[in-house]
Amino acid sequence: MLPILLYMDRHDQSAWVKAFKSACPEADVRVYPDWGDDKNEPCYAFLWKPKRGMVADHPNIKIVFYGGAGIDHLLADPTLPADIPIVRLSDDGLKSGMADWVAMSVMLHNRQMPQVLANQRRKHWDQIVPILPQSQTVGFMGYGALGKVCAERLKIFGFNINTWSNSLKAKEFGVKHHYGPECLKEFLSKTDILVSLLPATTDTDDLLNADTLACLPRGASVINAGRGNVLDTTALLDAIERGHIAGASLDVFKTEPLPTDDPLWACERVILTPHISATTRHETAANHVIKSMRDYEATGKLMNLYVRERGY
Amino acid sequence: MLPILLYMDRHDQSAWVKAFKSACPEADVRVYPDWGDDKNEPCYAFLWKPKRGMVADHPNIKIVFYGGAGIDHLLADPTLPADIPIVRLSDDGLKSGMADWVAMSVMLHNRQMPQVLANQRRKHWDQIVPILPQSQTVGFMGYGALGKVCAERLKIFGFNINTWSNSLKAKEFGVKHHYGPECLKEFLSKTDILVSLLPATTDTDDLLNADTLACLPRGASVINAGRGNVLDTTALLDAIERGHIAGASLDVFKTEPLPTDDPLWACERVILTPHISATTRHETAANHVIKSMRDYEATGKLMNLYVRERGY
Repeated sequence: MLPILLYMDRHDQSAWVKAFKSACPEADVRVYPDWGDDKNEPCYAFLWKPKRGMVADHPNIKIVFYGGAGIDHLLADPTLPADIPIVRLSDDGLKSGMADWVAMSVMLHNRQMPQVLANQRRKHWDQIVPILPQSQTVGFMGYGALGKVCAERLKIFGFNINTWSNSLKAKEFGVKHHYGPECLKEFLSKTDILVSLLPATTDTDDLLNADTLACLPRGASVINAGRGNVLDTTALLDAIERGHIAGASLDVFKTEPLPTDDPLWACERVILTPHISATTRHETAANHVIKSMRDYEATGKLMNLYVRERGY
Repeated sequence: MLPILLYMDRHDQSAWVKAFKSACPEADVRVYPDWGDDKNEPCYAFLWKPKRGMVADHPNIKIVFYGGAGIDHLLADPTLPADIPIVRLSDDGLKSGMADWVAMSVMLHNRQMPQVLANQRRKHWDQIVPILPQSQTVGFMGYGALGKVCAERLKIFGFNINTWSNSLKAKEFGVKHHYGPECLKEFLSKTDILVSLLPATTDTDDLLNADTLACLPRGASVINAGRGNVLDTTALLDAIERGHIAGASLDVFKTEPLPTDDPLWACERVILTPHISATTRHETAANHVIKSMRDYEATGKLMNLYVRERGY
């Protein structure tokens, strides 16, 4: 196996080395800046939020295995070589973490918890009748590896599942797929609880705005666990204010950490988590990446490869 | 089938009649006070929170089918005939509603949401690393029909499941049962997230008190969806204050509605829902009760029968 050049921003690098060594004892794992001097020696890189120029400065990096599912931070580096293969992380730890957070968040809105928590603050006992999951539709925007595990989890609760994405999906039991921009409004009009897992691309910038939020039925909820660029939060707060949107759970923001003067913090109908829905974990991620490298060396194939044309 | 004498306190009686008629078109369903004058005509009763004396005044009631899983309100009527068979409700609607609420609540504590919500109020961005469900043990106190469906749901998230109850349980895949008072402390010491589904009996009064809460490991969470009598909330608030208990989700209280001067309302670490974890629903409950009546007429057997000696 090729050497692995490691840089995980603000992580304990030694814990990552240990996890890779545990997954593959013979792996040659090198922690930045000790990546070696031979710029002709082919290497893999395992990176999260690398500094600008880090990849360009090492033309011997053959493939970048990224430490997360969203690679927008990496793509924002203008020095990034145009043709370098990038593999997005899609390990079991990330998937189960996201399924846990999304199931919790969907249940919070199914059970009208923003209202219930507000009632608690006012010491107001109001026995809101729970809505049956069977009578609500959860709509996923973006439906890749993470969306699939979230949908599987929510089916168990009884929710109806719709999806909207920019690529055709294979038929799937109990899931209704929508495909392409012309279907977006129809998809939104049938969604009670919207879950965005969309990546950050130029196509997704402010895709959830005043116009599209207005397509959701009155009383719908909005959950964003993908990327902050997707949601116009001013439009969201306005829709909440007008009672059109009942509540939101947001884990991702245009600026992170969310600035203290952002009105989202204080909105009672917004449940805010600080980008912790799904955390990259040493063991599951290292095992997954080592397996991907071995599969690649055996078959020449890479799963979860970044496709420039679609932007993720 | 015998006539059904119906009284569902503060419910829409006509919706119940409709549900029973839909489950069994030939059923003779009579809404209180029009229960008929013939006190010798054998009847079933379907009741929720009947007024004191209502059952005693109708010696022709052969079996009480109760409109909820907890029958403490009925048993508190000193005029209740000592030998009347009482069937507790255990329908699919109640079970799935409880599984939904308990799964939501367990996830809220697994994801340390009382802390995260407090951070939001302070506009404080703190990326708490999520705890893996696989590394936490959910301990059920009381493990009947409702506990079983909750445990099944939580297994899917990866939690370890322990139970404690006052009767021996059959072995079950992925669940460790504890039985009897002498095992309680051991059970508590291994519980990260405690879920009480215990009924209200003299044995369960303040079973969760300063002593037993102290048996939980530091940082444990307490969820009560059974009955309010089980939990000494003064002891709970004290344990939260000292940091021994990280948080609580409470759906049931000693006095309901919870009085506005109760300090539980204002405790940031307590998530309070107003006895809405599992709601009795017309369709599922009526179908279930009709089926129970038919089974009884065919076989002479009653499921979920109240056992005087154990108190539930």
